[in-house]
Amino acid sequence: MIRNGIEIEDSFAEAFGMNATRLVITALNPRWARIAAETMTGFATSVIGCGAEAGIERELSPDETPDRRPGMSVLLFAMSGKDLEKQVERRVGQCVLTCPTTAIFSGMSSEKPVPLGKNLRFFGDGHQISKLIDGKRYWRIPVMDGEFLCEEMTARRSAVGGGNFLVLARSLPQALAACEHAVEAIRALPSVLLPFPGGIARSGSKVGSKYKALMASTNDAFCPTLRGLVDSRLDAEVGAVLEIVINGLTEADVSEATRVGIDAVCTLGADSGVIRISAGNYGGKLGQYHFHLRELMA
Amino acid sequence: MIRNGIEIEDSFAEAFGMNATRLVITALNPRWARIAAETMTGFATSVIGCGAEAGIERELSPDETPDRRPGMSVLLFAMSGKDLEKQVERRVGQCVLTCPTTAIFSGMSSEKPVPLGKNLRFFGDGHQISKLIDGKRYWRIPVMDGEFLCEEMTARRSAVGGGNFLVLARSLPQALAACEHAVEAIRALPSVLLPFPGGIARSGSKVGSKYKALMASTNDAFCPTLRGLVDSRLDAEVGAVLEIVINGLTEADVSEATRVGIDAVCTLGADSGVIRISAGNYGGKLGQYHFHLRELMA
Amino acid sequence: MIRNGIEIEDSFAEAFGMNATRLVITALNPRWARIAAETMTGFATSVIGCGAEAGIERELSPDETPDRRPGMSVLLFAMSGKDLEKQVERRVGQCVLTCPTTAIFSGMSSEKPVPLGKNLRFFGDGHQISKLIDGKRYWRIPVMDGEFLCEEMTARRSAVGGGNFLVLARSLPQALAACEHAVEAIRALPSVLLPFPGGIARSGSKVGSKYKALMASTNDAFCPTLRGLVDSRLDAEVGAVLEIVINGLTEADVSEATRVGIDAVCTLGADSGVIRISAGNYGGKLGQYHFHLRELMA
Amino acid sequence: MIRNGIEIEDSFAEAFGMNATRLVITALNPRWARIAAETMTGFATSVIGCGAEAGIERELSPDETPDRRPGMSVLLFAMSGKDLEKQVERRVGQCVLTCPTTAIFSGMSSEKPVPLGKNLRFFGDGHQISKLIDGKRYWRIPVMDGEFLCEEMTARRSAVGGGNFLVLARSLPQALAACEHAVEAIRALPSVLLPFPGGIARSGSKVGSKYKALMASTNDAFCPTLRGLVDSRLDAEVGAVLEIVINGLTEADVSEATRVGIDAVCTLGADSGVIRISAGNYGGKLGQYHFHLRELMA
Repeated sequence: MIRNGIEIEDSFAEAFGMNATRLVITALNPRWARIAAETMTGFATSVIGCGAEAGIERELSPDETPDRRPGMSVLLFAMSGKDLEKQVERRVGQCVLTCPTTAIFSGMSSEKPVPLGKNLRFFGDGHQISKLIDGKRYWRIPVMDGEFLCEEMTARRSAVGGGNFLVLARSLPQALAACEHAVEAIRALPSVLLPFPGGIARSGSKVGSKYKALMASTNDAFCPTLRGLVDSRLDAEVGAVLEIVINGLTEADVSEATRVGIDAVCTLGADSGVIRISAGNYGGKLGQYHFHLRELMA
Repeated sequence: MIRNGIEIEDSFAEAFGMNATRLVITALNPRWARIAAETMTGFATSVIGCGAEAGIERELSPDETPDRRPGMSVLLFAMSGKDLEKQVERRVGQCVLTCPTTAIFSGMSSEKPVPLGKNLRFFGDGHQISKLIDGKRYWRIPVMDGEFLCEEMTARRSAVGGGNFLVLARSLPQALAACEHAVEAIRALPSVLLPFPGGIARSGSKVGSKYKALMASTNDAFCPTLRGLVDSRLDAEVGAVLEIVINGLTEADVSEATRVGIDAVCTLGADSGVIRISAGNYGGKLGQYHFHLRELMA
Repeated sequence: MIRNGIEIEDSFAEAFGMNATRLVITALNPRWARIAAETMTGFATSVIGCGAEAGIERELSPDETPDRRPGMSVLLFAMSGKDLEKQVERRVGQCVLTCPTTAIFSGMSSEKPVPLGKNLRFFGDGHQISKLIDGKRYWRIPVMDGEFLCEEMTARRSAVGGGNFLVLARSLPQALAACEHAVEAIRALPSVLLPFPGGIARSGSKVGSKYKALMASTNDAFCPTLRGLVDSRLDAEVGAVLEIVINGLTEADVSEATRVGIDAVCTLGADSGVIRISAGNYGGKLGQYHFHLRELMA
Repeated sequence: MIRNGIEIEDSFAEAFGMNATRLVITALNPRWARIAAETMTGFATSVIGCGAEAGIERELSPDETPDRRPGMSVLLFAMSGKDLEKQVERRVGQCVLTCPTTAIFSGMSSEKPVPLGKNLRFFGDGHQISKLIDGKRYWRIPVMDGEFLCEEMTARRSAVGGGNFLVLARSLPQALAACEHAVEAIRALPSVLLPFPGGIARSGSKVGSKYKALMASTNDAFCPTLRGLVDSRLDAEVGAVLEIVINGLTEADVSEATRVGIDAVCTLGADSGVIRISAGNYGGKLGQYHFHLRELMA
C-alpha cells in the first residue's frame, strides 16, 4: 500500500491490556495546572522502569472542570489495578498535593474504584474535612496555601497500551520532523497518551537478550548501524527509524490515533525523506490487541 | 530584621546530607535536549515518594558539551549512594536512552563512581561498542535512530538537601507571585535544584502525625485555615504561605541560593503583599545543616 | 501465612488480558458432544505455540442447550480478537463441523461479535439455509449425516489468562497428587479453564534466555536439579514443583479458582508432602492482573 | 458384492503420500502418558486446518519403552517433511515438555532425521545436559518437576493419508453405531491412525466449490437432505452417511485397516440398518494410492 509516495507496510502493532484512569487537575491559572500535570506525569515513559505511563490529555477551560477553574486532564496507565492505585496515590501525593493552588478530581467513572484523596486526606492530620456533593465525597486538606481540595475516589478501566507505528526515513532529522508532525496531530485527540519523551521513542526493543537478566534488548533488525551484521529489516536507503507509541482508553482510541498519526506523516509526501511506515510486534503472540496498518489506513 | 518592609524572621532552615550527581544530556537541538531532561527529572519532588529529587540545572551551549551539541545540565539527588545509582540507571534508561537523538555524559568527577552507561550498554545485546578517550570509557549502543552514545561512569558527591524558606503573604496570589520571582532568581544559579513543582511547595510538613503509620503530616502551625484551631505561627493578616525548597551540591550553594531567593522577594517590597520570610525546621534535631536566615541576609 | 501446616508465600500471580469466547456444542448423546469438544480444545495449552488456549468448561444437560440435546460448554482464549476469530473458525471447522451429529451455538453475548457459522456456511456450497429465530441467525449446512446446524455469530469479551499457583512438595508424586486434587476442585467452577495437560504444568518459564531467539526459557530458580547452580528459590527439602495455570472470563473468576485450588491443596495438610504454595510472576511488570496469594486466602 | 446382506460398492478410496513419524511418550503412570498423548494429538483432524493429523497408536507397557515406564505410542502425519518437523517441535514443546512427569523418545528409525529434543533442549537455558547411549543422543532439560528427558532426534518416513470408506445406513444412529464398531476394530491395529473426531467424519467433501476461494465443499452427492436437488449417489432408503478416514505408515497398513473396518461393519448384518459400503475418491486424478473395496474384501 502506497500513500502519497510513502509505503505502508503490511504489518501490525501489538498492544497489551492495561489499567487506566483519568484525573482532572485544576489550579489558580493554566500555568500552575500545567506545572502540576507535567510534574506528575514526568518519568512515566514505561511501566517497566517508571511504574506508570502517564501524560497530559488536554487543557480544560474553567467551564469544563468541577471547581470552575482552569485545568488539565491527565491520563495514567499501569499494568495492574493495584499498580495503578499505588501510582495514583504516590504521584498525586508528591506532585499535586504539593503544588501551589491545585485541586484534583476524578475524570472517569466505572465500577472499579481507585482511591484518589481517600488516603491522602490523612496528611491533614485530623483537620481534613469531608463533604458529600451529588453522591461524591470530597476532602478539604489544610495546607499552607489554604486547602487542597480532592475527590475521594477516581475509577479505572481496562485500557490499551503499546499501540505504535515506526517511521523509516532517509535521515534522522527527516524521521524526527515527520514524527514531530504526527505527534502534534495525535495530541489533538482525546483519550490517548504518547508516553515516550516528546511523544517519540528511538529505542525499539525486542523480547529477550543474550544477557540472561535482561528481558528486552535493542531491536537490532531496525538499527541502521547493524544492517550488515544482523538479519536487518532495513533497506539500504533507510538512515533512521523512530517510533510513536500510543496508549489509549479503548482499542478504537488507539486505532484512530494510529491512523491520524500515519496520515499526518503521509501528507508530508516522499520528499520529506520518509520511505516507509511499519509497526512493532512480537509475532502476535504476546499482546491482546493487534492494529493492522493497512486495515487502519484502508 | 526588616528588609524593604518585609520581616526576616529569626529562624533557620534545617537541611540534610544527600548524594548528588550532575549529568549532561545533549541532542540534535536544544528542544530535544530539554525534552529528555524534563522527562528524566519529572516526578522527582521528594525522595520519599519519588526515589529521587531532580531538576534541570541549566542549558548548555554546544561549546560547553563533550560532543559539541546543544545540551542540558541536570542534577539528581538521592539519600544514599546506592539509591542514587539506581535512580541514575533507571531514569537515564527510561528517559534518555529512549529519547530521539540524545547522548549522555558525566557532569561531575569524584572518587565515588556511579555507573551511567555501564549497565545500560547491555541493551545493545552484544552490538554495543566501547571507546576509551582521554581515560574515559564511552559506549555506543545501536538504536533505531543510530547510536546512543553514553559515558560509562559518572560520579557522585555528598550534597545538601532541604534548604528552604517560607513566604508569608496577605493572599495566595501575592505569595505565589513573590515566589515565582524568587524561583526565577535562584534558577540562574549553578549547582542548585528546586525539586518541587515549579520550584514551589505549598504542603509544608511537620514530623509525625496523629495517624501512627504516617511519618509526616501537614505543618498545621503554618496553615491559614487552622489558625483558630491549633497553636498557629501565623498572624491574623497572613492569608497564605508558600515554601521554596533548595537542594545544592554544597552548603555554600544552598546558602547562596537562599540568600538570592529571599533577596528577590524583598526587592518586591511590602506592597507585594508579602509580610514575612520564615523557614522550616524540626527544632534542629534532625538535619545536619542549619541555615539561619538573618545570618544569610546580614 | 500458614494454612493447615502449608506455607502460603507472600507472592502473586501475574496474569494478562486476553480475548475469550464460550461455545456450546451439542450432539446426539453426551459421548459425541465430548468427543467434539475434546478434539476442538486439544493442542491448546498456550497461545504461543498453539494459537489458542482452550478447554471444556462443563457438561450441559439437554434443558440447558438451544436444541435440547446433550451438550458441552467450551471456552476458547486467544490474545487478540482477530486471533480468536481465526481460531474459532479453524477449530470449529476442523473439529465440530466434521464430527458426527454435532451442532454449535454461541455461549456468550457482547457487543463484540465473532463469526461462528458465518463463514463455515460456505462449506454448504450454496445449499446452506439460514433461519432467523428471536433475532439470532442460524445456518443449516448439508453434510453426509444430515445437517450441521450452527449459529451465525458468537461474541467475545476481554478475559484474563495466566493466573497460576505453584505447589512445592517433597517429591514429585506428592506434588502431582496435590495438584490433581486441586484440578478436580477448580474444574467444578464455571468460567475458568486450565489450559495445560491434565490442568497441570511442570515447565515454568522465565522471560528471556541466553539463546537470543528464545523469548522464554526454564524457570531455573524453581528447578530442583539446579539448586546448587543457580540462585534458587527452592529450599533443600523441595523435591518437585508443579504449576496450575488458570484462565478465566473475569478477574473474579481467576481469583476464585486460585482460592479454591489452593484451598484444596491445603486441606491435604503437611502430611501430603506439600511444603509451600507460591506463584509465578515477572516482577509485576508485564501482566495487567496481579493475584496476591495471601489476600486471596485471607 | 454383498457381505452379510450389506452391499460393497465397486468403488475405491483415493489416498495421498504424506510424511509420518512415531513418538513414544512415557510418564509416571499410564494416566499421565495418555493425557500428554491426547493433548499433543488434539486438534489434528486434517492437515489443511490443523497442520498435522495425529492420534494415539496404542498404549505401551513398561517393558516396551526406553525408560521402562508406562507409555503411549503416537503417530503424527504431515504433508511435507518440513511441515512434520515443525509440528513435532511445536506439539511436543507445548504438550509434552509441559506435562508433568513425561519423557519422549523416537518410535521410528530411518535415514530421514527429524529433530525431537534437538531444539527443545534450549528451553534449558544452558543447563540442559546431553548423554550418548548406544549411538543415540538424549537431553535432560531441567524443569520444575525434575528433568524432561527427550531423545535428540526422531525419524520420518513416507506414509499414506486419506484412505477411507463410507457407511450408508437407514438412519444416523444406525450409521453411527456401525462406525463406532469399525473404529474399535481398526484401533486394535498397529501403524494406523483415524484422524477425525472419535475416528469418524460426517463432512465428506468434494474438490472445488461455487465459491471461488474455497478449495473444497460438502460432498453434495452424499448428503441425504440434498437428494432431490443434486445428482445424488444416495438411494431413497439412505438416511445418513458417515466416513472413516484412515492414515497408515504403509499402503499395506491402510489396506488392512480398511478391510478390518469394513469387515467389522458387515458382521453387524443388514439388520443393523447399514445398506451399503462405499468410498471417497476424486475420480482417481489426485491421489497416489487407490484402495478398491472389492479387491480388499475379496
